[in-house]
Amino acid sequence: MEPGSVRENDLHDVLAGLGPWPGHVVVGPGDDCAVLAGAGGGAGGGVTIATVDQVVEGVHFAPGEDLELVARKCIARSISDIAAMGGAPRWALATGAIPAAMTHDDAKRLLLAVHRWGRHWGCPVVGGDITGTSGPLVVSVTAVGVVEHARGAVLRSGAKPGDGVYVTGRLGGSLASGRHLRFEPRVVEGAWLAQTLGTRLHAMMDLSDGLGIDGTRLARASGVRLLLDAAALPMHEGVAGWRNAAGDGEDYELLFAAGGEVPSACGTTGTAITRIGTVQEGKGCVIVAGGVEFEGGGLGWEHGG
Amino acid sequence: MEPGSVRENDLHDVLAGLGPWPGHVVVGPGDDCAVLAGAGGGAGGGVTIATVDQVVEGVHFAPGEDLELVARKCIARSISDIAAMGGAPRWALATGAIPAAMTHDDAKRLLLAVHRWGRHWGCPVVGGDITGTSGPLVVSVTAVGVVEHARGAVLRSGAKPGDGVYVTGRLGGSLASGRHLRFEPRVVEGAWLAQTLGTRLHAMMDLSDGLGIDGTRLARASGVRLLLDAAALPMHEGVAGWRNAAGDGEDYELLFAAGGEVPSACGTTGTAITRIGTVQEGKGCVIVAGGVEFEGGGLGWEHGG
Repeated sequence: MEPGSVRENDLHDVLAGLGPWPGHVVVGPGDDCAVLAGAGGGAGGGVTIATVDQVVEGVHFAPGEDLELVARKCIARSISDIAAMGGAPRWALATGAIPAAMTHDDAKRLLLAVHRWGRHWGCPVVGGDITGTSGPLVVSVTAVGVVEHARGAVLRSGAKPGDGVYVTGRLGGSLASGRHLRFEPRVVEGAWLAQTLGTRLHAMMDLSDGLGIDGTRLARASGVRLLLDAAALPMHEGVAGWRNAAGDGEDYELLFAAGGEVPSACGTTGTAITRIGTVQEGKGCVIVAGGVEFEGGGLGWEHGG
Repeated sequence: MEPGSVRENDLHDVLAGLGPWPGHVVVGPGDDCAVLAGAGGGAGGGVTIATVDQVVEGVHFAPGEDLELVARKCIARSISDIAAMGGAPRWALATGAIPAAMTHDDAKRLLLAVHRWGRHWGCPVVGGDITGTSGPLVVSVTAVGVVEHARGAVLRSGAKPGDGVYVTGRLGGSLASGRHLRFEPRVVEGAWLAQTLGTRLHAMMDLSDGLGIDGTRLARASGVRLLLDAAALPMHEGVAGWRNAAGDGEDYELLFAAGGEVPSACGTTGTAITRIGTVQEGKGCVIVAGGVEFEGGGLGWEHGG
């Protein structure tokens, strides 16, 4: 858990209530990305999506962590938000607040790694800012992408009663295993789902704080209830049980709600797609295990990711 | 001065050498903004410009500073970069790394102030990220804008021998007077200059680190020499002399090079425009005072802004 008395979810709620927005802001704060249309946003009449995320030493990575992996994680987190809208990353900006104790060579290594990972995912870092700090390392990455398919940007808010609830890949144990530093953002899968399911893909987001908390967010944004089956959760090897799969966080898999038939794997990458529940009328995200209902919001790790 | 052994200018040089860039990246790191064209950048075939900047407690503002002014400064710095390209701000993203000692109410005040100042300058903050830190407050603002006039984005690199060198407003004493927290980004002036001078406006940037250092940057980007007259520098009241006007930094006025006649004030706002020198062949930025030449690069405050 992180330091301080700040209740981040409350602040995110404040932001989500700051409308109305000017006409070119299609979606403001509260989803994985903002959605911008027209001048300053659009790509030939299409939509641009934009997100920013940060990693802080001691919160999102351990002091002394390999800077290559720190850079990778910060880029990958923002690109995962682009993936969660079904978008394609296009360009990025980055900042580094560099601790006094960091050597110049290490700062340079970090910088070059941020650039390399941006390019790796088709998202070159076209600008940035570097400054000193008396505190821990803070790296932020703004990623901007486009939505290239007819479905448009996939929001968290479209889930409908009767939809199936699905996740890509497997869940749990991300921090313990180090996967949180090495995950693959689901860019190809997100775009493939939007292309393949079209308007049947009703809502999508990426899992950063764990299925329980993030499922609760998707349910709230859509005004529905998610009923999930603990026994159906796809788990990584070595994960002790469904509470870890739903609560460990930092999975960066896609959670989505869709109507009709959904393939059991991504046609492009082969990444597994698993049905884990159903959308109902009501509210909240409930995980049923051994006949008992658990509130998803009470599981997992709130780091404001 | 800021903590640490990191030589920021050297890192910025590393970034500027990271090309070649993909086709949609018209201008990468090294100017006030990156310039993006086409999908994911463009506004109906036009260009999008993007910048990110950060303020760190203890570097860019004093601990205990009014959070309203901290928010204002961080938004205004990024918008000043948009102004420096002759662009119009359109939307922003922000991050806050919040110290453990900050109360929830203060964090909320900061957040709302960031949003209010974004809207004030026509640049609504459409998304962001908040996290805790064991260190000082770090706020970053990404600003994205468009270039709406035929001149296109005004880079640092177009100054030509024979051009006049000009600044908007007055220089010096920004930190001592508190103006660094209350300056008005020159958005209207930047766009007016681009519109009025058209292709005669050869190069432009905003003054963050002081005329001496920033003039040296413009000269280097353009492959020219700036010869400036200390006696011509427009100074704020109370500024002791030309060394302060050229070296105090944080003016956030526009520095530009143009051919032909240039009006002595902005036709829209009335902001003064003062000729301070001439572009020559050669390199560096030299300020002549009492018949003696001073190297601009040796003056001022390098904070990596």
